[in-house]
Amino acid sequence: MTDIANRHKNNPILSPKDLKASDGNMIIECLLNPGAFEFNGKIGLLVRVAERTVQKEGLLSVPIYNNIGKVEILDFKLDDSKLNASDSRVIQYDGVDYLTTISHLRLVWSDNGVDFKEDPAYSSLFGEGEYESYGIEDCRVSKIKDTYHLTYTMVSSNGVGVGLRTTTDWKSFDKKGMIFSPHNKDCAIFEEKFNDKFYALHRPSSPELGGNYIWLAESPDGVHWGNHKCIAKTREGKFDSKRLGAGAAPIKTDKGWLEIYHGATKENRYCLGALLLDLKDPSIVLARSEEPIMVPTETYERTGFFGEVIFTNGHIVDGDSIQMYYGAADEYVGLATFSISEILKTLNV
Amino acid sequence: MTDIANRHKNNPILSPKDLKASDGNMIIECLLNPGAFEFNGKIGLLVRVAERTVQKEGLLSVPIYNNIGKVEILDFKLDDSKLNASDSRVIQYDGVDYLTTISHLRLVWSDNGVDFKEDPAYSSLFGEGEYESYGIEDCRVSKIKDTYHLTYTMVSSNGVGVGLRTTTDWKSFDKKGMIFSPHNKDCAIFEEKFNDKFYALHRPSSPELGGNYIWLAESPDGVHWGNHKCIAKTREGKFDSKRLGAGAAPIKTDKGWLEIYHGATKENRYCLGALLLDLKDPSIVLARSEEPIMVPTETYERTGFFGEVIFTNGHIVDGDSIQMYYGAADEYVGLATFSISEILKTLNV
Repeated sequence: MTDIANRHKNNPILSPKDLKASDGNMIIECLLNPGAFEFNGKIGLLVRVAERTVQKEGLLSVPIYNNIGKVEILDFKLDDSKLNASDSRVIQYDGVDYLTTISHLRLVWSDNGVDFKEDPAYSSLFGEGEYESYGIEDCRVSKIKDTYHLTYTMVSSNGVGVGLRTTTDWKSFDKKGMIFSPHNKDCAIFEEKFNDKFYALHRPSSPELGGNYIWLAESPDGVHWGNHKCIAKTREGKFDSKRLGAGAAPIKTDKGWLEIYHGATKENRYCLGALLLDLKDPSIVLARSEEPIMVPTETYERTGFFGEVIFTNGHIVDGDSIQMYYGAADEYVGLATFSISEILKTLNV
Repeated sequence: MTDIANRHKNNPILSPKDLKASDGNMIIECLLNPGAFEFNGKIGLLVRVAERTVQKEGLLSVPIYNNIGKVEILDFKLDDSKLNASDSRVIQYDGVDYLTTISHLRLVWSDNGVDFKEDPAYSSLFGEGEYESYGIEDCRVSKIKDTYHLTYTMVSSNGVGVGLRTTTDWKSFDKKGMIFSPHNKDCAIFEEKFNDKFYALHRPSSPELGGNYIWLAESPDGVHWGNHKCIAKTREGKFDSKRLGAGAAPIKTDKGWLEIYHGATKENRYCLGALLLDLKDPSIVLARSEEPIMVPTETYERTGFFGEVIFTNGHIVDGDSIQMYYGAADEYVGLATFSISEILKTLNV
């Protein structure tokens, strides 16, 4: 047994029934992949909420976000010859792809880290403009000095890229545009500058040579990125044989930067592993999990919107303890704790 | 007839027989896609030379570049069960892809812009290190003040990305690493800084949503890039229905930045078109060719290593005249001139 996660007894701590849809035309399909942060003594989560539109007789309706972050519904007649609805997740109309669900980032707060609810003083985040018209997904929150850096997946017909918004008060946000061009996601910025640079992990995908690998990039300002280096590839026969990507921001330890990442097999089973990166040069990988540190075992992880999935992009660190929030079966939010020293022990460092 | 190129009577001006292979183990397969620049009163081309290894009985040999830019040859036994050689361009051994040809950038010089030869005082450019082990391809040369910026395709098992090297003397080069992560190519940096920024066109490719589109990026220093915006997509039924990418650096005109780009159909016919971008905000497209301005018509363009291809990434501009160098049928280098005002006329501006 390689699973060293301590799951919370209240798991799943959030389910679709616990939140209201963003508007009367929408239905929540799943809650997943929360970003996590601390602010003013509370723990905040940015939960990805995937919604679909209430369907009307004879029509197929898909949601898109307009320039001001309001959902608009496009109705296609089911008998329209320009419509191709053979895939339930992506439909095509007149040569353009549309997604049948759309995600926003719901902001919820907690005093104890277990019970979360919305606060009317804070708004949730929606897709805004051309590059987010099909939604925003899977946000990592990295606090650098007093500024929270939100890196998230921007989805539109232009492709899937990484967006950045920053905030200091969770009420007003600076939009910094797309920082990694398609196809890219799973971006986590390190929470301090060193070597006079910002660093980030990201996950470009390639249709030809290469694959779904974790890369490292550098930046003078956190907005413009270069010197891309590949630090972790898929491994045949292991838990990360088909794809892998960074979780939340790397954790600074005496031994190196500890990164909890997800790896998936060709059968789309998502587990978590760990990477240890050199403190001074994080392009150097010191150690990597041979076996996963967390695997789908509970019913809410094995069965749901998309079963056999554990995916994390948010945690709170306190001394040796990692309080990790995770998406389970793409439908629920779970909480598990890890001991940093125990993870390092599995890496033999 | 929409072709408004004036082809040179000596075309093709360079063929594989005109150059020697880089070493006795190699055979030149094709000359293609030259970058072009002016230096010390001469015109220089960086021609992509694609070579394959001389094959030995019972073996399949593939070339790779080592850390110091020297070619190394890997020999696989044809009867080895780990070898998959069903595709003549990419073979697989033990799960790793290798290319059967490898490209370097041959530096050739001319006084008249038509007759080119090597100069022993200047070395050619080879792949160096992990990200260029399968070669370097299709270089654009942008001169900004006194510094030449060479953006080219880096090919390795990590994927296909964009590399940058700079030089002022064509003898020593500064390696700036990978500036756009996989899958990306066709990068052209604008030849002046404006709005206090560097700008570049690039061409990410997406395995899912999106496609092979031209994007614009911004940079404070020419090395780190952000604020990616999609400026030109493929168009169903036109010459650029399947893929498109930037040619050489945009040309500043009174009407806007003029970019000559390539567009290909699903049948892989490569033609050239033009884009006109706003002088102050180049993310605004003012005009775009409805019909190509150059199409494969001559024998050396229609027949060769890969027929029906015209591809450009290098030109010299003098007043209204563009002296354009181009890859023809992926095997030859051609020369054609265009009138800028005539191109603008086809754009109805």
